[in-house]
Amino acid sequence: MVYIVKQKIHGREYYYLRESVRKGKKVVSRTICYLGKTREEAEKKAKEVMESMKKKVSSEKESAERDLSSKPSLRKLKKLNPSIEELATFCKRRGFVYPSAEIYGGYSGFWDFGVLGAELKKNIKDCWWKFYVYGRDDIVGIDGSIITSPKVWEASGHVENFNDIFVICKKCHKANKVDAAEIGKVRCPCGGEYDFENAKKFKLMFETFVGEGGKAYLRPETAQLIFTNFKFVYGNSRLKLPCGIAQIGKAFRNEISPRDFLFRCREFEQMEIEYFIKENQSCPYEIPDVEILIYSAEAQEKGMDAERMSIRKAYKKGIIKNDWHAYWLANCFLWFKGLGANPERFRLRQHRKEELAHYSSDCWDLEYEFPFGWKELQGIADRGNYDLRRHEEFSKKDLKLFDEKDGKKFLPHVICEPSLGVERAFLVFMFDSYFSDVEKGNIVLRLHPKLAPIKAAVFPIVKKKEFEDLAEKIVNDLKKEWNVVYDRAGSIGRRYARNDEIGTPYCITIDGDSLKRNDVTIRDRDTTLQVRVKINELKEVLRRLIEEGVSLEEVGDPI
Amino acid sequence: MVYIVKQKIHGREYYYLRESVRKGKKVVSRTICYLGKTREEAEKKAKEVMESMKKKVSSEKESAERDLSSKPSLRKLKKLNPSIEELATFCKRRGFVYPSAEIYGGYSGFWDFGVLGAELKKNIKDCWWKFYVYGRDDIVGIDGSIITSPKVWEASGHVENFNDIFVICKKCHKANKVDAAEIGKVRCPCGGEYDFENAKKFKLMFETFVGEGGKAYLRPETAQLIFTNFKFVYGNSRLKLPCGIAQIGKAFRNEISPRDFLFRCREFEQMEIEYFIKENQSCPYEIPDVEILIYSAEAQEKGMDAERMSIRKAYKKGIIKNDWHAYWLANCFLWFKGLGANPERFRLRQHRKEELAHYSSDCWDLEYEFPFGWKELQGIADRGNYDLRRHEEFSKKDLKLFDEKDGKKFLPHVICEPSLGVERAFLVFMFDSYFSDVEKGNIVLRLHPKLAPIKAAVFPIVKKKEFEDLAEKIVNDLKKEWNVVYDRAGSIGRRYARNDEIGTPYCITIDGDSLKRNDVTIRDRDTTLQVRVKINELKEVLRRLIEEGVSLEEVGDPI
Repeated sequence: MVYIVKQKIHGREYYYLRESVRKGKKVVSRTICYLGKTREEAEKKAKEVMESMKKKVSSEKESAERDLSSKPSLRKLKKLNPSIEELATFCKRRGFVYPSAEIYGGYSGFWDFGVLGAELKKNIKDCWWKFYVYGRDDIVGIDGSIITSPKVWEASGHVENFNDIFVICKKCHKANKVDAAEIGKVRCPCGGEYDFENAKKFKLMFETFVGEGGKAYLRPETAQLIFTNFKFVYGNSRLKLPCGIAQIGKAFRNEISPRDFLFRCREFEQMEIEYFIKENQSCPYEIPDVEILIYSAEAQEKGMDAERMSIRKAYKKGIIKNDWHAYWLANCFLWFKGLGANPERFRLRQHRKEELAHYSSDCWDLEYEFPFGWKELQGIADRGNYDLRRHEEFSKKDLKLFDEKDGKKFLPHVICEPSLGVERAFLVFMFDSYFSDVEKGNIVLRLHPKLAPIKAAVFPIVKKKEFEDLAEKIVNDLKKEWNVVYDRAGSIGRRYARNDEIGTPYCITIDGDSLKRNDVTIRDRDTTLQVRVKINELKEVLRRLIEEGVSLEEVGDPI
Repeated sequence: MVYIVKQKIHGREYYYLRESVRKGKKVVSRTICYLGKTREEAEKKAKEVMESMKKKVSSEKESAERDLSSKPSLRKLKKLNPSIEELATFCKRRGFVYPSAEIYGGYSGFWDFGVLGAELKKNIKDCWWKFYVYGRDDIVGIDGSIITSPKVWEASGHVENFNDIFVICKKCHKANKVDAAEIGKVRCPCGGEYDFENAKKFKLMFETFVGEGGKAYLRPETAQLIFTNFKFVYGNSRLKLPCGIAQIGKAFRNEISPRDFLFRCREFEQMEIEYFIKENQSCPYEIPDVEILIYSAEAQEKGMDAERMSIRKAYKKGIIKNDWHAYWLANCFLWFKGLGANPERFRLRQHRKEELAHYSSDCWDLEYEFPFGWKELQGIADRGNYDLRRHEEFSKKDLKLFDEKDGKKFLPHVICEPSLGVERAFLVFMFDSYFSDVEKGNIVLRLHPKLAPIKAAVFPIVKKKEFEDLAEKIVNDLKKEWNVVYDRAGSIGRRYARNDEIGTPYCITIDGDSLKRNDVTIRDRDTTLQVRVKINELKEVLRRLIEEGVSLEEVGDPI
């Protein structure tokens, strides 16, 4: 129930819109917004607010976008669906991402992250590390080198097998890669015929020379550094199987045709886990009961649609056959969901037999619906003990573990490797947070507070020394913990809009009352609701908002 | 004044050692430690504690090591001075750093960071970023690519000039690098003669091939990515001169002879700032009044010693001529000092004329006294506008800024680039925290809590389900914020020692009283003092201990 209340503060009257909601046995009331100082004004504004709330609910239901309706809001947001080119333009304009060496015309497949992009990328990596490494007691992290002994890549099979076949189109003269099975059978997207007679093998690994000329490679994946260090790490960290080793770091692939902005680059960053078990060891963890589109190999072969169901149920029905795969697919999905990605745009797709890598006996991908189609984010492949076995053979070192129960040595199996490109996660979060303000027209980048490049912008309402001094003092205190900026320039409206557009979740203003009452206002980016907070409680309040996911209405009464 | 007090809790008697200290007009008392349950026991222990405190004070004064004496302590620590080889052995044994591809015999100049090393490295980078980027409003961060257009390295002069001359020793047959000026004049460290006739130019940049064969380079420094993006970043971030752009990332140099563990690697990580001013713009910040050894070019040329003085004073006396250099040298030093490095081992050394790089008109190094001599950590070079000018020439793009005051365009000058290798900082913090427990003999790694790989280890005193359940609950809660572990194995003493050795600053134990009183004990690594803390206050207490640098005695009375 929504109703108007009048409050008297220091002898003056103020009107507010309030709402009562039944929670279990209790009725809870909360203020939705401030309406003004006279009854007429209040009634007019209340009508507007309520209509805007209704409209929002219905437009959101129509577009099946994320649910804002549970939050009171003074703002109507519309989900935009930019193309990848539009997103790239936005990223360049707002300082998220530039083509590398742009002043020299760029360099295909390489990108530089600007001020905001560097922060977003760092936050993605930190959230991943906290979720998978700090958050679990069965995973530890390492940080291996990009260039390592070339013997590693001989053992892994990359030197021999990590190639593409590339052909030139006779019509558009562009190079494209084709599968071995496609030779003589496919045409260029432009319609032209390929010159299959001059098809060439194309090495995907970047080569370099170390010291006085020894050939070496830039790692095409971080995984091998985990395998070569496996036994040391296992020994040092006192892990017990089942357990994983995680790593975040750059990897390089000499793609013939980099494309789709950050989606397929030549230099990228991987967030990878190799998860080890004793062969046939079952998963001791409960598979999360979370719904997603599931697209089995069978459904793909029969031309059927993907089916929405709980991952736990999919495992129980035998669609996902391996308990570990079901468990990790669910966790990978939950990581994205927990950071505000739109769950509607995700699906699990099983690799068809012909897609499986040489070392893999089963593989599922967590896919996301990009503007250019469903694409892989994260592959959950069963690598068996292929890698450790090969490194044993090539290094002549014993990489086996000892089983105290049966007194025998064994080589652990990799049951899956939830490997994710930072740049792909970057795209997902950018796409899913890309909204516009229906009335004002500006972009509102609804990044999760943990991901937002700037956590809060602080500004004085008035350009006066005492306001500015207080603002500066507050900024300096908050900067010790977060990336917080003092925003000086332009009108208040312009400052809000600018911060909305770069995803700053909270704007903190110092107004006339701040000096008298030692408090500030905090404005929520997504709802534009504001609360007043005492300055000495501000840090703790921001911590709850940013780190603990508390909503603004929970830290104070909206004004 | 130190004295024994008796307290009655629930009808039982407990003895404590307390101390009264005059602070201004007030006398403040605090508990030093718990002494036992009987007067005899208490008197005996008090005597021991007071003697151990006295001894500690005198031994510390002798060795001129860092000051523990202001802290009460139950432990006597001795600073060890390991050689670089000993440190490398320790790092491998405890899982900090392994030679890359160790199972294949390693790969010279490349290192993999294990579980603890990866965390320490990450913490060093995070502390740097917080200090220089979040902590200041004149510096923003970017994240550029490792491979970029080769035109960048032509413009920067690296393709032409970034070479070493290498010669083979006729006696030991090892390759060494020599300066052009040394040709025909020097001998190998083994005493043998060099084969100067076959001296070769040796390119320090790693080459690779991009796409269908275009030559490219792995960046030998992160700086150029800042210059090529300078104008975009300046425009996007609304910075105003004087201001800086920071970057952390890998760089690669094909050193002829990598050596001294992490000190000279072929793959390393830089933390770099390019700080821009309008030519001759003076420094608006106060130069910190912090003391350090100062070793001017003049002192070096005259064979004089370095002189200890305040950096502010050194600027006022004209020894450091540039206000910006003095300011940044002090800040770089303060960063290390604030994270627990031993200030006695640092000095500022001015480059002599013959040492200056082609683009630089003055340069000071922040040096550290490694076991293998005084070595550069961080160079504060004046680069002028060399780089931006070269990129203007080569790209034909206007990189000038517009000065509203005089209506003229100008190219900013780089007044300094406080560039630091993460691996070198890693070594400094490891060396300076390497202590041993005099009585027990184990290593105590006194890493600053912000740097420590594991912030806290939690363990139940007794192996019983209710203790273990509570420990697990506490760990799971703390893991959301920090890298915290549940340590299960071995005796309590063994667990303390193990955590001391890897630098864990706090051990949290669950004992019999914990279940009754909902509290735990926290033990400080450096003093072994313990306090009891309520479980619902634990997170906040740890935050104060780790993030705010509060000492254990400030969060509770030692027991």
